[in-house]
Amino acid sequence: MPHHETNLQFSTEERETLYRIIRARRDMRHFVGGEVTPEVLTRILEAAHAAPSVGLMQPWRFIRITKQTLRDDLVVLVEAEKDKTAQALNARQAEFMRLKVEGLRDCAELIVVVLAPDDGTIFGRRTMPEAMALASVSCAIENMWLAARVENLGMGWVSFFEPDDVAALLQCPEGAKPIALLCLGPVKAFYDKPMLEQEDWRQGKTLTAILSEDEYPS
Amino acid sequence: MPHHETNLQFSTEERETLYRIIRARRDMRHFVGGEVTPEVLTRILEAAHAAPSVGLMQPWRFIRITKQTLRDDLVVLVEAEKDKTAQALNARQAEFMRLKVEGLRDCAELIVVVLAPDDGTIFGRRTMPEAMALASVSCAIENMWLAARVENLGMGWVSFFEPDDVAALLQCPEGAKPIALLCLGPVKAFYDKPMLEQEDWRQGKTLTAILSEDEYPS
Repeated sequence: MPHHETNLQFSTEERETLYRIIRARRDMRHFVGGEVTPEVLTRILEAAHAAPSVGLMQPWRFIRITKQTLRDDLVVLVEAEKDKTAQALNARQAEFMRLKVEGLRDCAELIVVVLAPDDGTIFGRRTMPEAMALASVSCAIENMWLAARVENLGMGWVSFFEPDDVAALLQCPEGAKPIALLCLGPVKAFYDKPMLEQEDWRQGKTLTAILSEDEYPS
Repeated sequence: MPHHETNLQFSTEERETLYRIIRARRDMRHFVGGEVTPEVLTRILEAAHAAPSVGLMQPWRFIRITKQTLRDDLVVLVEAEKDKTAQALNARQAEFMRLKVEGLRDCAELIVVVLAPDDGTIFGRRTMPEAMALASVSCAIENMWLAARVENLGMGWVSFFEPDDVAALLQCPEGAKPIALLCLGPVKAFYDKPMLEQEDWRQGKTLTAILSEDEYPS
Protein backbone atom coordinates (compact mmCIF):
# COMPACT_ATOMS: atom_id res chain seq x y z
CA MET A 1 0.00 0.00 0.00
CA PRO A 2 1.43 3.39 -0.92
CA HIS A 3 2.49 5.53 1.99
CA HIS A 4 0.09 8.33 1.13
CA GLU A 5 -2.93 6.04 1.55
CA THR A 6 -1.86 4.75 4.95
CA ASN A 7 -1.19 8.22 6.24
CA LEU A 8 -4.04 10.09 4.63
CA GLN A 9 -5.88 12.55 6.83
CA PHE A 10 -9.61 11.99 6.91
CA SER A 11 -12.01 14.89 6.52
CA THR A 12 -15.04 15.83 8.61
CA GLU A 13 -17.23 14.54 5.82
CA GLU A 14 -15.51 11.15 5.74
CA ARG A 15 -15.78 11.00 9.52
CA GLU A 16 -19.52 11.56 9.37
CA THR A 17 -19.80 8.90 6.67
CA LEU A 18 -18.20 6.29 8.93
CA TYR A 19 -20.45 7.22 11.84
CA ARG A 20 -23.53 7.01 9.61
CA ILE A 21 -22.49 3.52 8.50
CA ILE A 22 -21.87 2.42 12.09
CA ARG A 23 -25.28 3.74 13.20
CA ALA A 24 -27.11 2.21 10.24
CA ARG A 25 -25.59 -1.29 10.66
CA ARG A 26 -28.07 -3.90 11.92
CA ASP A 27 -27.97 -7.59 12.82
CA MET A 28 -30.40 -8.70 10.11
CA ARG A 29 -32.54 -11.84 10.06
CA HIS A 30 -34.98 -10.89 7.27
CA PHE A 31 -33.61 -11.36 3.75
CA VAL A 32 -35.20 -11.39 0.31
CA GLY A 33 -33.05 -13.85 -1.62
CA GLY A 34 -31.36 -12.28 -4.62
CA GLU A 35 -27.61 -12.39 -5.05
CA VAL A 36 -24.30 -10.89 -4.03
CA THR A 37 -22.03 -10.45 -7.03
CA PRO A 38 -18.52 -11.95 -6.84
CA GLU A 39 -17.00 -8.43 -6.92
CA VAL A 40 -19.07 -7.29 -3.93
CA LEU A 41 -18.40 -10.50 -2.00
CA THR A 42 -14.67 -10.13 -2.59
CA ARG A 43 -14.71 -6.52 -1.35
CA ILE A 44 -16.53 -7.58 1.81
CA LEU A 45 -14.11 -10.45 2.46
CA GLU A 46 -11.13 -8.20 1.81
CA ALA A 47 -12.50 -5.83 4.44
CA ALA A 48 -12.64 -8.75 6.86
CA HIS A 49 -9.09 -9.81 6.03
CA ALA A 50 -7.82 -6.26 6.68
CA ALA A 51 -8.79 -6.60 10.35
CA PRO A 52 -6.23 -6.48 13.15
CA SER A 53 -5.15 -9.73 14.77
CA VAL A 54 -3.11 -10.57 17.82
CA GLY A 55 0.47 -11.37 16.82
CA LEU A 56 -0.68 -11.14 13.16
CA MET A 57 -2.25 -14.60 13.54
CA GLN A 58 -5.15 -13.88 11.17
CA PRO A 59 -6.95 -16.83 12.77
CA TRP A 60 -10.13 -16.35 10.69
CA ARG A 61 -11.27 -18.89 8.08
CA PHE A 62 -14.26 -18.24 5.81
CA ILE A 63 -16.26 -21.05 4.23
CA ARG A 64 -18.73 -19.97 1.57
CA ILE A 65 -21.64 -22.40 1.40
CA THR A 66 -22.55 -23.06 -2.24
CA LYS A 67 -24.34 -26.43 -1.97
CA GLN A 68 -28.02 -26.34 -1.11
CA THR A 69 -27.70 -29.67 0.72
CA LEU A 70 -25.10 -28.19 3.06
CA ARG A 71 -27.28 -25.15 3.68
CA ASP A 72 -30.18 -27.50 4.48
CA ASP A 73 -27.99 -29.42 6.91
CA LEU A 74 -27.02 -26.18 8.65
CA VAL A 75 -30.70 -25.20 8.91
CA VAL A 76 -31.39 -28.50 10.68
CA LEU A 77 -28.59 -27.82 13.19
CA VAL A 78 -29.86 -24.30 13.85
CA GLU A 79 -33.45 -25.46 14.28
CA ALA A 80 -32.33 -28.04 16.85
CA GLU A 81 -30.44 -25.40 18.83
CA LYS A 82 -33.36 -22.97 18.66
CA ASP A 83 -35.53 -25.64 20.30
CA LYS A 84 -32.99 -26.16 23.06
CA THR A 85 -32.70 -22.40 23.59
CA ALA A 86 -36.50 -22.09 23.78
CA GLN A 87 -36.60 -24.78 26.47
CA ALA A 88 -33.79 -23.08 28.42
CA LEU A 89 -35.65 -19.77 28.33
CA ASN A 90 -38.53 -21.20 30.40
CA ALA A 91 -41.07 -18.41 30.91
CA ARG A 92 -40.06 -16.54 27.75
CA GLN A 93 -40.21 -19.64 25.53
CA ALA A 94 -43.35 -18.69 23.59
CA GLU A 95 -42.18 -15.11 23.17
CA PHE A 96 -38.82 -16.35 21.85
CA MET A 97 -40.44 -18.67 19.32
CA ARG A 98 -42.30 -15.72 17.81
CA LEU A 99 -39.02 -13.94 17.03
CA LYS A 100 -37.23 -14.51 13.74
CA VAL A 101 -33.71 -15.22 14.93
CA GLU A 102 -31.97 -16.32 11.75
CA GLY A 103 -32.18 -15.94 7.99
CA LEU A 104 -30.39 -19.05 6.74
CA ARG A 105 -33.03 -20.03 4.19
CA ASP A 106 -33.56 -16.60 2.64
CA CYS A 107 -30.14 -14.98 2.55
CA ALA A 108 -28.29 -14.74 -0.77
CA GLU A 109 -24.98 -15.91 0.71
CA LEU A 110 -24.20 -18.04 3.74
CA ILE A 111 -20.68 -17.85 5.08
CA VAL A 112 -19.38 -19.89 7.99
CA VAL A 113 -16.62 -18.26 10.01
CA VAL A 114 -14.24 -20.60 11.79
CA LEU A 115 -11.60 -19.88 14.42
CA ALA A 116 -8.53 -21.74 13.14
CA PRO A 117 -6.72 -24.26 15.35
CA ASP A 118 -4.18 -22.66 17.65
CA ASP A 119 -0.97 -22.04 15.66
CA GLY A 120 1.14 -21.61 18.79
CA THR A 121 1.45 -17.83 18.59
CA ILE A 122 2.65 -16.49 21.96
CA PHE A 123 2.93 -12.80 21.07
CA GLY A 124 0.15 -10.85 22.83
CA ARG A 125 -1.77 -13.93 23.99
CA ARG A 126 0.32 -15.77 26.56
CA THR A 127 -2.23 -15.08 29.30
CA MET A 128 -5.44 -15.20 27.17
CA PRO A 129 -4.69 -17.52 24.24
CA GLU A 130 -8.15 -18.45 23.02
CA ALA A 131 -9.79 -15.14 23.95
CA MET A 132 -7.35 -13.06 21.91
CA ALA A 133 -7.66 -15.29 18.83
CA LEU A 134 -11.44 -15.14 19.05
CA ALA A 135 -11.29 -11.37 19.53
CA SER A 136 -9.34 -11.07 16.28
CA VAL A 137 -11.91 -13.09 14.33
CA SER A 138 -14.66 -10.94 15.81
CA CYS A 139 -12.94 -7.75 14.65
CA ALA A 140 -12.86 -9.24 11.14
CA ILE A 141 -16.58 -9.98 11.32
CA GLU A 142 -17.34 -6.41 12.44
CA ASN A 143 -15.40 -5.14 9.41
CA MET A 144 -17.56 -7.41 7.23
CA TRP A 145 -20.71 -6.11 8.87
CA LEU A 146 -19.86 -2.50 8.11
CA ALA A 147 -18.73 -3.44 4.60
CA ALA A 148 -22.01 -5.24 3.95
CA ARG A 149 -23.98 -2.22 5.16
CA VAL A 150 -22.11 0.23 2.94
CA GLU A 151 -22.76 -2.17 0.03
CA ASN A 152 -26.45 -1.79 0.99
CA LEU A 153 -26.65 -5.44 2.01
CA GLY A 154 -27.82 -6.92 5.29
CA MET A 155 -25.76 -9.28 7.42
CA GLY A 156 -26.74 -11.36 10.44
CA TRP A 157 -24.55 -13.34 12.83
CA VAL A 158 -26.29 -16.60 13.71
CA SER A 159 -24.84 -18.32 16.78
CA PHE A 160 -27.61 -20.88 17.35
CA PHE A 161 -25.61 -24.07 16.83
CA GLU A 162 -23.35 -26.62 18.49
CA PRO A 163 -19.85 -25.75 17.21
CA ASP A 164 -18.75 -29.41 17.09
CA ASP A 165 -21.66 -30.34 14.81
CA VAL A 166 -20.88 -27.55 12.36
CA ALA A 167 -17.16 -28.43 12.49
CA ALA A 168 -17.95 -32.05 11.59
CA LEU A 169 -20.26 -31.03 8.73
CA LEU A 170 -17.61 -28.81 7.15
CA GLN A 171 -14.67 -31.16 7.69
CA CYS A 172 -12.86 -28.79 10.01
CA PRO A 173 -9.57 -30.01 11.47
CA GLU A 174 -9.12 -30.82 15.16
CA GLY A 175 -9.16 -27.63 17.21
CA ALA A 176 -11.02 -25.48 14.67
CA LYS A 177 -14.13 -23.82 16.08
CA PRO A 178 -17.00 -22.48 13.99
CA ILE A 179 -18.21 -19.30 15.68
CA ALA A 180 -20.61 -17.71 13.19
CA LEU A 181 -23.03 -18.55 10.43
CA LEU A 182 -23.16 -15.26 8.57
CA CYS A 183 -26.28 -14.58 6.55
CA LEU A 184 -25.56 -11.97 3.89
CA GLY A 185 -27.62 -10.45 1.13
CA PRO A 186 -30.27 -8.01 -0.03
CA VAL A 187 -32.96 -7.02 2.47
CA LYS A 188 -36.28 -5.26 2.02
CA ALA A 189 -35.50 -2.76 4.78
CA PHE A 190 -33.12 -2.38 7.68
CA TYR A 191 -34.59 -2.38 11.18
CA ASP A 192 -35.01 1.12 12.62
CA LYS A 193 -33.29 -0.08 15.79
CA PRO A 194 -31.89 -3.42 16.98
CA MET A 195 -34.55 -6.05 16.25
CA LEU A 196 -34.57 -7.17 19.87
CA GLU A 197 -35.45 -3.60 20.90
CA GLN A 198 -38.01 -3.26 18.14
CA GLU A 199 -39.71 -6.49 19.24
CA ASP A 200 -39.57 -5.45 22.92
CA TRP A 201 -37.36 -8.38 23.84
CA ARG A 202 -34.82 -6.16 25.58
CA GLN A 203 -33.75 -2.50 25.65
CA GLY A 204 -30.17 -1.28 25.22
CA LYS A 205 -28.13 0.55 27.83
CA THR A 206 -27.12 4.21 27.76
CA LEU A 207 -23.47 5.09 27.17
CA THR A 208 -23.15 6.42 30.72
CA ALA A 209 -24.13 3.01 32.12
CA ILE A 210 -21.08 1.30 30.62
CA LEU A 211 -18.47 4.05 31.07
CA SER A 212 -16.54 5.31 34.08
CA GLU A 213 -13.23 6.77 35.21
CA ASP A 214 -10.48 4.87 37.02
CA GLU A 215 -12.71 2.06 38.32
CA TYR A 216 -15.37 -0.32 37.12
CA PRO A 217 -18.70 1.42 36.31
CA SER A 218 -21.11 1.21 39.24
CA MET B 1 -33.01 7.28 15.07
CA PRO B 2 -35.12 8.49 12.14
CA HIS B 3 -36.12 5.83 9.64
CA HIS B 4 -34.43 7.60 6.74
CA GLU B 5 -31.04 7.34 8.43
CA THR B 6 -31.34 3.62 9.14
CA ASN B 7 -32.45 2.86 5.62
CA LEU B 8 -30.25 5.23 3.71
CA GLN B 9 -28.59 3.88 0.60
CA PHE B 10 -24.85 4.38 0.57
CA SER B 11 -23.10 5.67 -2.52
CA THR B 12 -20.02 4.36 -4.30
CA GLU B 13 -18.08 7.26 -2.83
CA GLU B 14 -19.15 6.43 0.73
CA ARG B 15 -18.28 2.80 0.09
CA GLU B 16 -14.78 3.74 -1.00
CA THR B 17 -14.43 5.94 2.08
CA LEU B 18 -15.17 3.00 4.40
CA TYR B 19 -12.72 0.75 2.59
CA ARG B 20 -10.02 3.45 2.76
CA ILE B 21 -10.56 3.74 6.52
CA ILE B 22 -10.42 -0.04 6.96
CA ARG B 23 -7.19 -0.27 4.95
CA ALA B 24 -5.56 2.67 6.76
CA ARG B 25 -6.33 1.39 10.29
CA ARG B 26 -3.27 0.19 12.20
CA ASP B 27 -2.56 -1.33 15.59
CA MET B 28 -0.41 1.54 16.85
CA ARG B 29 2.24 1.45 19.56
CA HIS B 30 4.01 4.75 18.83
CA PHE B 31 2.26 7.83 20.21
CA VAL B 32 3.27 11.45 20.67
CA GLY B 33 1.35 12.50 23.78
CA GLY B 34 -1.05 15.37 23.08
CA GLU B 35 -4.72 15.08 23.86
CA VAL B 36 -8.06 13.75 22.70
CA THR B 37 -10.79 16.33 23.20
CA PRO B 38 -13.91 15.25 25.14
CA GLU B 39 -16.04 15.64 21.99
CA VAL B 40 -13.79 13.32 19.98
CA LEU B 41 -13.55 10.78 22.80
CA THR B 42 -17.34 10.72 23.12
CA ARG B 43 -17.77 10.16 19.38
CA ILE B 44 -15.33 7.24 19.50
CA LEU B 45 -17.06 5.68 22.52
CA GLU B 46 -20.48 6.15 20.92
CA ALA B 47 -19.17 4.27 17.88
CA ALA B 48 -18.14 1.44 20.22
CA HIS B 49 -21.51 1.42 21.94
CA ALA B 50 -23.30 1.16 18.57
CA ALA B 51 -21.74 -2.28 18.03
CA PRO B 52 -23.82 -5.42 17.73
CA SER B 53 -24.04 -7.74 20.73
CA VAL B 54 -25.40 -11.22 21.25
CA GLY B 55 -28.89 -11.03 22.76
CA LEU B 56 -28.37 -7.25 23.10
CA MET B 57 -26.15 -7.92 26.13
CA GLN B 58 -23.84 -4.97 25.46
CA PRO B 59 -21.30 -6.70 27.73
CA TRP B 60 -18.61 -4.04 27.20
CA ARG B 61 -17.44 -1.72 29.98
CA PHE B 62 -15.00 1.13 29.38
CA ILE B 63 -12.78 2.54 32.11
CA ARG B 64 -10.98 5.75 31.22
CA ILE B 65 -7.73 6.03 33.17
CA THR B 66 -7.27 9.60 34.40
CA LYS B 67 -4.89 9.09 37.34
CA GLN B 68 -1.19 8.95 36.53
CA THR B 69 -0.62 6.56 39.43
CA LEU B 70 -3.06 4.07 37.92
CA ARG B 71 -1.40 4.38 34.54
CA ASP B 72 1.96 3.75 36.21
CA ASP B 73 0.56 0.66 37.92
CA LEU B 74 -0.71 -0.66 34.57
CA VAL B 75 2.72 -0.06 33.02
CA VAL B 76 4.26 -2.21 35.76
CA LEU B 77 1.81 -5.04 35.04
CA VAL B 78 2.48 -4.83 31.29
CA GLU B 79 6.25 -4.81 31.78
CA ALA B 80 6.03 -7.93 33.95
CA GLU B 81 4.01 -9.75 31.29
CA LYS B 82 6.37 -8.63 28.52
CA ASP B 83 9.22 -10.27 30.45
CA LYS B 84 7.26 -13.50 30.78
CA THR B 85 6.39 -13.43 27.08
CA ALA B 86 10.04 -12.86 26.18
CA GLN B 87 11.04 -15.92 28.22
CA ALA B 88 8.30 -18.04 26.61
CA LEU B 89 9.51 -17.04 23.14
CA ASN B 90 12.88 -18.73 23.71
CA ALA B 91 14.90 -18.30 20.51
CA ARG B 92 13.11 -15.11 19.46
CA GLN B 93 13.49 -13.45 22.89
CA ALA B 94 16.07 -10.85 21.87
CA GLU B 95 14.20 -10.03 18.67
CA PHE B 96 10.97 -9.59 20.66
CA MET B 97 12.60 -7.23 23.14
CA ARG B 98 13.62 -4.92 20.30
CA LEU B 99 9.99 -4.48 19.25
CA LYS B 100 7.86 -1.73 20.72
CA VAL B 101 4.75 -3.64 21.71
CA GLU B 102 2.77 -1.05 23.66
CA GLY B 103 2.33 2.70 24.01
CA LEU B 104 0.98 3.05 27.55
CA ARG B 105 3.32 5.81 28.59
CA ASP B 106 2.98 8.01 25.52
CA CYS B 107 -0.66 7.76 24.47
CA ALA B 108 -3.00 10.66 25.18
CA GLU B 109 -5.77 8.43 26.52
CA LEU B 110 -5.67 4.98 28.10
CA ILE B 111 -8.94 3.07 28.18
CA VAL B 112 -9.39 -0.33 29.77
CA VAL B 113 -12.07 -2.51 28.21
CA VAL B 114 -13.68 -5.07 30.47
CA LEU B 115 -15.98 -7.96 29.64
CA ALA B 116 -18.81 -7.60 32.17
CA PRO B 117 -19.78 -10.52 34.45
CA ASP B 118 -22.20 -12.94 32.81
CA ASP B 119 -25.72 -11.48 33.09
CA GLY B 120 -27.39 -14.82 32.38
CA THR B 121 -28.39 -14.05 28.79
CA ILE B 122 -29.28 -17.30 27.00
CA PHE B 123 -30.38 -15.86 23.64
CA GLY B 124 -27.77 -16.72 21.00
CA ARG B 125 -25.18 -18.02 23.43
CA ARG B 126 -26.46 -21.21 25.03
CA THR B 127 -23.70 -23.28 23.42
CA MET B 128 -20.89 -20.64 23.48
CA PRO B 129 -21.63 -18.32 26.43
CA GLU B 130 -18.29 -16.67 27.06
CA ALA B 131 -17.16 -16.71 23.42
CA MET B 132 -20.21 -14.83 22.17
CA ALA B 133 -19.97 -12.17 24.91
CA LEU B 134 -16.29 -11.68 24.17
CA ALA B 135 -17.05 -11.51 20.44
CA SER B 136 -19.49 -8.67 21.09
CA VAL B 137 -16.93 -6.67 23.05
CA SER B 138 -14.42 -7.23 20.25
CA CYS B 139 -16.85 -5.88 17.66
CA ALA B 140 -17.19 -2.75 19.81
CA ILE B 141 -13.41 -2.38 19.93
CA GLU B 142 -13.15 -2.69 16.14
CA ASN B 143 -15.72 0.09 15.79
CA MET B 144 -13.54 2.21 18.11
CA TRP B 145 -10.47 1.41 16.05
CA LEU B 146 -12.07 2.60 12.83
CA ALA B 147 -13.53 5.63 14.59
CA ALA B 148 -10.12 6.56 15.98
CA ARG B 149 -8.57 6.28 12.52
CA VAL B 150 -11.17 8.50 10.87
CA GLU B 151 -10.54 11.03 13.68
CA ASN B 152 -6.87 10.83 12.56
CA LEU B 153 -5.85 9.25 15.87
CA GLY B 154 -3.96 6.05 16.48
CA MET B 155 -5.20 3.20 18.65
CA GLY B 156 -3.43 0.10 19.91
CA TRP B 157 -4.84 -2.97 21.68
CA VAL B 158 -2.41 -4.05 24.39
CA SER B 159 -3.04 -7.58 25.68
CA PHE B 160 0.20 -8.06 27.61
CA PHE B 161 -1.23 -8.46 31.13
CA GLU B 162 -2.72 -10.91 33.58
CA PRO B 163 -6.45 -10.17 33.54
CA ASP B 164 -6.88 -10.88 37.26
CA ASP B 165 -4.23 -8.31 38.18
CA VAL B 166 -5.88 -5.58 36.08
CA ALA B 167 -9.30 -6.54 37.48
CA ALA B 168 -8.01 -6.15 41.04
CA LEU B 169 -6.39 -2.80 40.28
CA LEU B 170 -9.62 -1.35 38.84
CA GLN B 171 -11.96 -2.83 41.46
CA CYS B 172 -13.80 -5.00 38.97
CA PRO B 173 -16.54 -7.24 40.37
CA GLU B 174 -16.27 -11.04 40.47
CA GLY B 175 -16.50 -12.46 36.95
CA ALA B 176 -15.48 -9.27 35.11
CA LYS B 177 -12.53 -9.80 32.75
CA PRO B 178 -10.32 -7.01 31.44
CA ILE B 179 -9.47 -7.89 27.83
CA ALA B 180 -7.81 -4.76 26.45
CA LEU B 181 -5.72 -1.79 27.44
CA LEU B 182 -6.47 0.60 24.61
CA CYS B 183 -3.86 3.24 23.88
CA LEU B 184 -5.44 6.13 21.99
CA GLY B 185 -4.14 9.44 20.75
CA PRO B 186 -2.19 11.46 18.22
CA VAL B 187 0.63 9.71 16.36
CA LYS B 188 3.45 11.05 14.24
CA ALA B 189 2.66 8.67 11.39
CA PHE B 190 0.72 5.46 10.80
CA TYR B 191 2.69 2.34 9.87
CA ASP B 192 2.66 1.61 6.13
CA LYS B 193 1.70 -1.97 6.93
CA PRO B 194 1.13 -3.93 10.14
CA MET B 195 4.08 -3.19 12.42
CA LEU B 196 4.86 -6.89 12.80
CA GLU B 197 5.21 -7.12 8.99
CA GLN B 198 7.22 -3.91 8.84
CA GLU B 199 9.61 -5.21 11.49
CA ASP B 200 9.85 -8.63 9.76
CA TRP B 201 8.39 -10.42 12.75
CA ARG B 202 5.78 -12.19 10.63
CA GLN B 203 4.07 -11.82 7.24
CA GLY B 204 0.31 -11.86 6.68
CA LYS B 205 -1.62 -14.44 4.69
CA THR B 206 -3.29 -13.94 1.31
CA LEU B 207 -7.08 -13.89 1.14
CA THR B 208 -7.11 -17.15 -0.81
CA ALA B 209 -5.32 -18.92 2.06
CA ILE B 210 -8.19 -18.31 4.47
CA LEU B 211 -11.17 -18.75 2.13
CA SER B 212 -12.82 -21.81 0.60
CA GLU B 213 -16.14 -23.25 -0.54
CA ASP B 214 -18.19 -25.84 1.35
CA GLU B 215 -15.33 -27.17 3.46
CA TYR B 216 -12.47 -25.93 5.61
CA PRO B 217 -9.67 -24.22 3.58
CA SER B 218 -6.86 -26.64 2.84
